[in-house]
Amino acid sequence: MDKYEHGGNIYVYDEDVIDFSSNINPLGFPECIRDSIDIAALTKYPDINYTQLKRSISRYVGLKNENIIVGNGAAELIYLFVRAFSLKRPLIPSPAFLEYERAVTLSGGNPLYYQIPEEDGYVIDVDKIVNCFKEVDSVIIGNPNNPTGKGIKSDEMMIIIKEAYKRNIPVMVDEAFIEFINDFQQYESTQFAKDYDDLFVIRAATKFFGLPGLRLGYGFGSENLIKRLEAYKEPWTVNAFADAVGRKIFDDVKFMENTRKYIREEIAYLTNELKKIDELVVFDTLTNFMLLKLKHWHVGDLKEELLKRGILIRDASNFRYLDNRYFRVAVKSHDDNVKLVEAIKEVLK
Amino acid sequence: MDKYEHGGNIYVYDEDVIDFSSNINPLGFPECIRDSIDIAALTKYPDINYTQLKRSISRYVGLKNENIIVGNGAAELIYLFVRAFSLKRPLIPSPAFLEYERAVTLSGGNPLYYQIPEEDGYVIDVDKIVNCFKEVDSVIIGNPNNPTGKGIKSDEMMIIIKEAYKRNIPVMVDEAFIEFINDFQQYESTQFAKDYDDLFVIRAATKFFGLPGLRLGYGFGSENLIKRLEAYKEPWTVNAFADAVGRKIFDDVKFMENTRKYIREEIAYLTNELKKIDELVVFDTLTNFMLLKLKHWHVGDLKEELLKRGILIRDASNFRYLDNRYFRVAVKSHDDNVKLVEAIKEVLK
Repeated sequence: MDKYEHGGNIYVYDEDVIDFSSNINPLGFPECIRDSIDIAALTKYPDINYTQLKRSISRYVGLKNENIIVGNGAAELIYLFVRAFSLKRPLIPSPAFLEYERAVTLSGGNPLYYQIPEEDGYVIDVDKIVNCFKEVDSVIIGNPNNPTGKGIKSDEMMIIIKEAYKRNIPVMVDEAFIEFINDFQQYESTQFAKDYDDLFVIRAATKFFGLPGLRLGYGFGSENLIKRLEAYKEPWTVNAFADAVGRKIFDDVKFMENTRKYIREEIAYLTNELKKIDELVVFDTLTNFMLLKLKHWHVGDLKEELLKRGILIRDASNFRYLDNRYFRVAVKSHDDNVKLVEAIKEVLK
Repeated sequence: MDKYEHGGNIYVYDEDVIDFSSNINPLGFPECIRDSIDIAALTKYPDINYTQLKRSISRYVGLKNENIIVGNGAAELIYLFVRAFSLKRPLIPSPAFLEYERAVTLSGGNPLYYQIPEEDGYVIDVDKIVNCFKEVDSVIIGNPNNPTGKGIKSDEMMIIIKEAYKRNIPVMVDEAFIEFINDFQQYESTQFAKDYDDLFVIRAATKFFGLPGLRLGYGFGSENLIKRLEAYKEPWTVNAFADAVGRKIFDDVKFMENTRKYIREEIAYLTNELKKIDELVVFDTLTNFMLLKLKHWHVGDLKEELLKRGILIRDASNFRYLDNRYFRVAVKSHDDNVKLVEAIKEVLK
C-alpha cells in the first residue's frame, strides 16, 4: 500500500465488493435527513458562521456555540489544529490514523511516535504517554484509536489533559468513533473541552452517522481555542447540504441507540467467530472495527483470496509499527459479517 | 466592515432582501443537475482521486486529468497554492479578492500590493506588474478582477506568465468569473497552464454555475505543478454531491450561452442607467458585477437606505485602496435590476 493510503477506496475495485475496509455505520444514515436535502440550498453561500448548525451540535453535546467549530470532515479540523498551533513535535501514540502524521509532516513537523505495545493488546498506559511530554510540543491521540479499536476512559484521559495543561502542551483527542462504544459516556473528553485551554476534541458525522460523502466534522474547545482555530480556518468549508443535514441528525436518539446495540451484537459475533480461527490473532475492540493479525500468512495473499470472493478488507501494513501480517475489518450487516467469517475460514483453512 | 468580511452574508439581514452583494449567476444553476442529487451518494467516501469528475472538467477545458485538481470551492485552491509553494511575498494587484491576502498572511507571508490606478478605470498595465517582479516571490491575480470587473487579455497575460517563468516565480490566475465575459476566450490562461510550470489557473462552479452552497472549485497546471499541489492537499475535500453535480454541469452549453447573453444585456442596462446618476462614478465591467463610487455620500448611509427598501449592496470599503465611497453590485433578474436602479435614484436624488 501507499504510505498514506486509506481503506474505503472502492473505486479501484469491482463495484459489487462488500467493503469491510471502510469503517462506516452499517445501519446507514438517520432517515430523518431525507427531507433536508433541498437543491435550492445550493444557490446560496452557507452561513459563514454556521450559527444554526452549531446550535444543533450544541444541544447534542451540551456545550455553547462559542465552544464549537465545524469543518469539512474531521480531516479539515486535524490539519487546522496542526497549522493554528504550528505543531512541530507532537506525540502520536501509534499505530494511529495516518492523517495525523501527514498533517504534521506537511507543516514541516516531525512527530514523536510512542509505540503502543502489542503485548497488552494495544491498551494505552497513560503514565507512559505522560512520561514523553518533556520531549514534545503537543499530543495527538485517537479515542478510540484507529486501527486498534482501544480506548482511554475519561478519568485516565484526565491525567493526560491535566499534565499537558501544566506544561502548556496542546492536546487533540480524535473521537470520530467514540459514539460506537456501548458506554461511550465513560470515554468522552467533551466535558473537559471548555475548561482546559489547548484541549481540542474532534468528532464527525462521517463514521457514526454513516455520511462520509457529506463531509461534516466538528470539534470542541475553550472559547480561546475555538477563536484561534477560526482565525486560521478557510471560509465556507462546510457545504450547504452538510449544514442542513447537520441540523437534523443529532436529534435522532433512536438511530444512535440502535447503532450501539447493533455494533455491540455484531462485534461480539465477529470476535467470537474469528477467535475460533487458529491462524488469527484477534484484538478485542470497543468500537465498530477490529484489528487482526495473521500468524503465518501475508495480508496481501489473504486480501487477494477474499477479493475473489467479493470481500474487501483493509490491509493494515501501512500503519506505523504494523506490517504485512495485519488487517482491519469493520462491522457490516449481519449477513455480510457471516460471509466474511466463512470466507476467511475457507481461505485460511 | 470587518477586514475580511465578504458579500453574500445574507444571514445577518432580513431573509427577503434582494442580494446584490453576492455575485452569483442570476439564472440559477443548470437544470440538468436535478437528477444528480442522490442521497445514497452520501454513504460512500467520494473517490479520493475524483477521476470521473476530472474527466468531465477535462472535456470542458481541453486539458488532461493530470493537469487538473479539484477543491472545496476556489477558496481551498487559493490557500493550497500559497502553502504548497510557501509563498511569502506575492505581488497582489489591488483592490483584489480578500482571501488572497488572508491566505498569504496566515502562512506568515507579507504581500506586495500593486495599486491598480483608478484614473485608468482600474485597467491593469502589465508592464507595471512585470516591473515589480524583482521584489516578489510570486504573483496572485484575479482575471477578471474582483471587485473592479476588469480583465487582462490572454496576449497581455502571456507577458506576465513568460516573465514570471524566466524568473521561476509561481503565478496564480483566478478565473472564477471569467466565463461571464462575453468573449471570454480572449481572456483565458487555461491553454498556457500545461506548458508553463508554476502557472496555476483557478476556476469554480460557485459563481458561473450558480452553486455557492455546493463547494466545487477546480484548477489547472502542468503535471508537475498539480503533483506538488496534490502532495499538500487534504483528502476528500470535495463532497459526494459536488462530485456528482460536477460531472453534469460542464456539458450544458446552452446554460452557459444563455448566461453570457443575459449578463451582457443586463450589465448594459445597469451601466447605462447608473451612469445617468450624477452622484455616481460607474466603472465599466467585463463581468457580472460592477464597482461604483459615490461622489459625496458615504456607502454606509446608502446601504442603510437601500436596506430599508429591501436591497443589499456590497460595501466595498474593506478592499485595499478603496474606502467608504465605494460599493459593488452584481447583476440579478431584470426586475430586480430595475428595482436597484430606481431605489438608488430615489435615495441619491
